[in-house]
Amino acid sequence: MPWTYECDSFKRCIKSKVADASDNANEIGLSLAECQLTCDREYSILWPRPREAELGQTVTPFELEGIDFSNFDAVKSAPTAKLLRENIDEQIKWARKKKVFDAPAKNVGTLFSISIDLEKDDPEAPRPSKDMKEYYTLKVSSDAAEKTIEAKISAYCYFGARHAIETLFQLIEYDEIRRTFIVLDDVDISDYPEFTHRGISFDSARNFMTVDVIKKVLDGLAQSKMNVFHWHMTDTNTIPIEMTREPANLMAKYGSYGPDKIYSKDDIREIVRHATKRGIRVIPEMTQPAHIGFGWNFPGAEDYTVCLNGYPWYDLCYQPPCGQINPTVEGVYDLLEVIYQEWFEIFGGFDTFHMGGDEVKFGCWNTSDSIVEYMKKNNMERTDEGFVKLWKEFNEKSSARLMKATGKDLDRVVWTSTLTKRENLAALPVDEYIIQYWGNASNTEDDQLKALADANYRMIFSNYDVLYLDCGYGAWVGEGNNWCSPYKGWQLIYSNDPYDRLGNVGVPLTKEKKALVLGGEAAMWSEQVDSFGVEAKIFPRATALAERLWSNPSEKWYEAEARMLQQRYRLTHRGVTPDRLQPEWCRRNEGQCYWKDDNPHN
Amino acid sequence: MPWTYECDSFKRCIKSKVADASDNANEIGLSLAECQLTCDREYSILWPRPREAELGQTVTPFELEGIDFSNFDAVKSAPTAKLLRENIDEQIKWARKKKVFDAPAKNVGTLFSISIDLEKDDPEAPRPSKDMKEYYTLKVSSDAAEKTIEAKISAYCYFGARHAIETLFQLIEYDEIRRTFIVLDDVDISDYPEFTHRGISFDSARNFMTVDVIKKVLDGLAQSKMNVFHWHMTDTNTIPIEMTREPANLMAKYGSYGPDKIYSKDDIREIVRHATKRGIRVIPEMTQPAHIGFGWNFPGAEDYTVCLNGYPWYDLCYQPPCGQINPTVEGVYDLLEVIYQEWFEIFGGFDTFHMGGDEVKFGCWNTSDSIVEYMKKNNMERTDEGFVKLWKEFNEKSSARLMKATGKDLDRVVWTSTLTKRENLAALPVDEYIIQYWGNASNTEDDQLKALADANYRMIFSNYDVLYLDCGYGAWVGEGNNWCSPYKGWQLIYSNDPYDRLGNVGVPLTKEKKALVLGGEAAMWSEQVDSFGVEAKIFPRATALAERLWSNPSEKWYEAEARMLQQRYRLTHRGVTPDRLQPEWCRRNEGQCYWKDDNPHN
Repeated sequence: MPWTYECDSFKRCIKSKVADASDNANEIGLSLAECQLTCDREYSILWPRPREAELGQTVTPFELEGIDFSNFDAVKSAPTAKLLRENIDEQIKWARKKKVFDAPAKNVGTLFSISIDLEKDDPEAPRPSKDMKEYYTLKVSSDAAEKTIEAKISAYCYFGARHAIETLFQLIEYDEIRRTFIVLDDVDISDYPEFTHRGISFDSARNFMTVDVIKKVLDGLAQSKMNVFHWHMTDTNTIPIEMTREPANLMAKYGSYGPDKIYSKDDIREIVRHATKRGIRVIPEMTQPAHIGFGWNFPGAEDYTVCLNGYPWYDLCYQPPCGQINPTVEGVYDLLEVIYQEWFEIFGGFDTFHMGGDEVKFGCWNTSDSIVEYMKKNNMERTDEGFVKLWKEFNEKSSARLMKATGKDLDRVVWTSTLTKRENLAALPVDEYIIQYWGNASNTEDDQLKALADANYRMIFSNYDVLYLDCGYGAWVGEGNNWCSPYKGWQLIYSNDPYDRLGNVGVPLTKEKKALVLGGEAAMWSEQVDSFGVEAKIFPRATALAERLWSNPSEKWYEAEARMLQQRYRLTHRGVTPDRLQPEWCRRNEGQCYWKDDNPHN
Repeated sequence: MPWTYECDSFKRCIKSKVADASDNANEIGLSLAECQLTCDREYSILWPRPREAELGQTVTPFELEGIDFSNFDAVKSAPTAKLLRENIDEQIKWARKKKVFDAPAKNVGTLFSISIDLEKDDPEAPRPSKDMKEYYTLKVSSDAAEKTIEAKISAYCYFGARHAIETLFQLIEYDEIRRTFIVLDDVDISDYPEFTHRGISFDSARNFMTVDVIKKVLDGLAQSKMNVFHWHMTDTNTIPIEMTREPANLMAKYGSYGPDKIYSKDDIREIVRHATKRGIRVIPEMTQPAHIGFGWNFPGAEDYTVCLNGYPWYDLCYQPPCGQINPTVEGVYDLLEVIYQEWFEIFGGFDTFHMGGDEVKFGCWNTSDSIVEYMKKNNMERTDEGFVKLWKEFNEKSSARLMKATGKDLDRVVWTSTLTKRENLAALPVDEYIIQYWGNASNTEDDQLKALADANYRMIFSNYDVLYLDCGYGAWVGEGNNWCSPYKGWQLIYSNDPYDRLGNVGVPLTKEKKALVLGGEAAMWSEQVDSFGVEAKIFPRATALAERLWSNPSEKWYEAEARMLQQRYRLTHRGVTPDRLQPEWCRRNEGQCYWKDDNPHN
C-alpha cells in the first residue's frame, strides 16, 4: 500500500502518499489500523465507547498464534470457563480475517496472555437475566524486552467477562504496513452500561427466518454488547413453533408456511444456547389478543378466533390478514396455558415474557354474535369503554394462566396501546408490567408517555419514527412508500437519547424517573424482509443504538463516525452481512466525507 | 399441508381448508403451484410475460430425473450445444430446491424430452451483441398414455434458446399436495422483446463487489431475460483493474482499497464468460473527465488530474472526494489509449463502450493554472461556453484514442449532462453516440430530452426518480435521507413505460421516434452498498423492470403482483438473495393483500 497515516489536530487519521512506494519499503509511517488505535480521541477505535478509559499511544506487534489463555485458574466454574475459551477462540478466528496480506508471521516469539477473574463464579452454567451485572475492567500492558503482552480481565460474572473479550479484540488490528497484528498498549478500561435493556425486536412470523441467520444476528448484537433479543414469534400469518401438547401441536400445521418453515424445539434451544453464549437474553413474544390467526384455525378451534381473514380487512384490522382472539371462549385460555407451558419448557425458562397487546380493533370483536351476547350479559356496553373492559378481562385471564403455567411471577411486557392510556392503566399492575413505547419520539404533548412516567412504569423505547428498521421501503399494501417512511438512518438512531423522550413530555429528569427507562429496542418487523436481507437491515443500524444505550454519549454522530465505520467493518469479519453506510474511501479517509474542520456542525 | 386452492372468477388462486387434513389425505384438490400454472390469466405464472401464448389448463406430473436432453442433434455448434446443456443442468438443480417435502419420487416412468432447433447455428462460441436476435418459440405437449412430455424450442440463435429454457422451467413447479413435479400442458409460446437494451448499471468503484456476487447478479438478471450489464468500473475513489501496460499498471496500486479488492484479468474474463452464458452483454464504463481520481495519482502523473481530493469538496465536485482529468495534458490521452487497449483485450472485445461524462464541474478546472493558461492561448473564455468547448475537445480526443486503441467504430454511451443539451449536441455525432438519460421521469418540460429526440439520438432511460436503486436510505454525506429519496418501489419501476418519457415532452410517438428508445437500465450506485447487500437492493426491483422492457405490458402492477411474487421466490432457488416485498402469506393468498375485488384500482 502506497499510503501512510497521521493523526491530525482534529483527531482524524489523515492519509498521505509515502515518498518511496516500492514494494520493499514496507515499514514507513503508520498504517490506518495503528493510527486509528492510537489517535488520541479518548476511546481509540472502540464501539461502544467505554465509560472510563485510559489508553496508551503506542502498539505492540504480535501474532495471533501467540495468544495464550490456557491458564484460567481463576475461573472456578467449568461451564463458564468453557464458554470463555470458546469466545476467545472465535475472536481469534474473526481477527484472522483482517489479515489481507499473505505475509509470513513476524512476531512469533511474543507471548500474549489473557487472564480472567470473576467475582461471582458459581458452578452453574451462566444464563442471562434481567438483573445480570455486566460491568468489567480490562487492563493491557506489554513488555517489549520480555516480548510479553498481558491482558487482565475482571468482572462480576461471565457476562461482563464476555463484554471485556469483545473490547479486547477491538484493540487488536492488522497492520497493513508492518504486516503483523498489533495491540494497543497501556489500556485501563472500567466499563458498564447506562441502560440494562439493549436490543432488538425481531419478527419471524410475517416471514420465516432461518436459525443460521438468527444466530448471525445474535453475533452482530453481541459485538456491540447488546443483551436483548425480543423474539416476535407469532402473528396472524403464522405461529411456526413445534409444540407437542394437544391441541397446541396442531398450531404449526395450520399456522406455518410449510414443513421447512417451522422452528423445532431443538432449533429454539440452539438459539437460546447461542444467545446465552453471546450474553443475550431471549424474550419471547406471544402476541395477543390481536395479530393472531391461522395457527388458531385448527379443527375444533373454530370459535377461538374472530374475523379471521375478514373482509374488507381495513375495517377489521390494521394490515391483512385480520384475526383476533375471541376472549369469551374458555378454551382459549386453556390453549394459552398449554402454549405457555410448552414455551417455558422449550426455552428452559425465562424471567420476562412479552404479551404483545398492540393494535386491537374493536370493530373486529363487534362483528361476533357470541362476543356481543357475552358483553350484554356482563354489562359491558358496545362502546370503546366496554371493549376496553373486555380486553382488560382477557388480559387478566391470560396473565393468570401465564403465572399458572410457569409457576413464576414473571415480568410481562406489552406494547403501548389503548390499554396503556392514562385512564386504563389500572389494568396493568405497575410492579408486573413493563411498557414498550412505540410512539413518535418527537411528540412533546404525549399524555400517554407522561402518564406512564407519572405512574412509575418501567419503559422500553422503540419509537417508530426512529427505531423501526422496516421503514422507508416500497409499500406492501398498495403503492408508494410504506407507512412509516422515510428510512431511519444510523445518525438518527444514534442521536436518540431515551431520557430526552421523558424530558420532552415534561417529566422531571430525577434519578428515580430516569431509572424507569430500562433501555430500548430497534424493531425489525418482517413484512418486507426474510433471511436473505435481514442482516443488512438490522446492521449496522442496531450497532448505532448499541452505543447510545451502553454509553449514552454526549458526542454528536459525526464525532462517532470513524468508530462506527470500523465497527461495521468488524461485523463483516464475523460473517455478518451488514449494509454499507459510505464508500470504503470514507473509512480510509476519516472525517473527509463529512466532518470537515470548517463544518458548521463541528 | 391442510390447504387446497381454487382459481376464482378474478383469476386469483384462493386457499381453503381441506375437509380431511389427516396426513394421508394428500391428493385432495389443487396445490398452489398447480393452481398458479393453470389459473387462466393468459400468462400462467411466467415472468416476464410472453408476447404471444396459448396455454393449456392442465398439468402433467413427472420427476426431474426424467428430463432428457441427450439428443441435441439439431444444434451443430459444439460450444452452443455445451452452453445449452449447462443451462438445462443448472435449471434442474435450481428446480430441485422447490421440493420442500422429502417424498419418494412417484412418476419416474415419465420421459420429458427437450429438443432445440436454431436458425443460425454457426460453429463459433456465442457472444452477445447489440443487435443479437432474442426471439424464440416454445411448445410443450404431453401424452399421458405414453408417459411422455415433449418440449420443443426453436430460436434464431443461442440467446433466444437460452430465454426459452428460462421460460420452460418457469412452467415446471413442485406440487406440494401430490408431492411431485408438474409441468403445464399444451404450451405454445412465441416470444420476443419490446426493447433491445434491458439491464442494470452496476457500480463497483465506490465499493468493491466480489466476483461471486457479480455472477449471482448476472444469474438474477438472466432469470428475467435481461441482457445488459453496464459495469461502472471506475470512479474517483478507485480504478481497481489489473492492467499490465505502463503506466496503467500503477493505477490499481494507487486506486484500489487493497490488494484483495482488485479485479484481475482472470476475474474480468470469468465475469464476461458467465455473462455470455446468461445472454448478457457487458458494457464497460471508464468514467471521464469527472469522477476520476486516485487511480490517476501515481508518481509521474501529478499533472494528469485537477483538484484531486480538493477542499472544500462541494465547491469542486458533486460528492467527496473530488477529481477531474486535466484535458490539456497530452500524457492523459496516451494513458487513456493504454487503458482502452488493455480493456478491449481483457474483455475479449466489445461493441459498445460507456464514456461516463456526467457531473463535470467547471469550478474544478477553473482552479488550475495550466488549464486557465491553455484556455487563454486557445481563445476559450472562462465562461460556461468556454469550458464546454474544452470539454468537447477532450471528448473528441479521448474518443479518437478509443477508436485507435480498439480499431473499431464503437458505439459510445454517455450520461446526460451539459454536453447533451440542445446547444451542445453537435459535439456528439448522432450515429456514434447513445445517450443514457438519468433526468426526472415526470418532467414534462425537459428541453434536453426533446432535443435528443428531435435530433434522433438513440436513448437508454435511467430516470433517477424511478430507476435509481440506491435512493431512500440514510444520507452518507451529512444526516437525514440521501439525495434522491424516497426509495423506488417495484410498483413504480413496473409502471414506468419508456415511451411515455418521450410522449411527456411532446415527441410524437411515431414508429421512428419509438425506435430511438433502446430500453433502460436500473442504476445500482454503490456509495452505500457492497457485496453484502447488493443483491437485495437490485432484486427483485430489477425483475420488475425486466417485464416492463421485455413485454411493455398494458396491465397495472397489481395485476402482475402474483407473478412477481413467484418470480421473486424463484430467484431464491438459484442462490440469489433478493429483498422481500410482502409477507409469504401474500404469495400464498393471491390478491388478498391488496387486489381486492372491491379495490378501486381494479
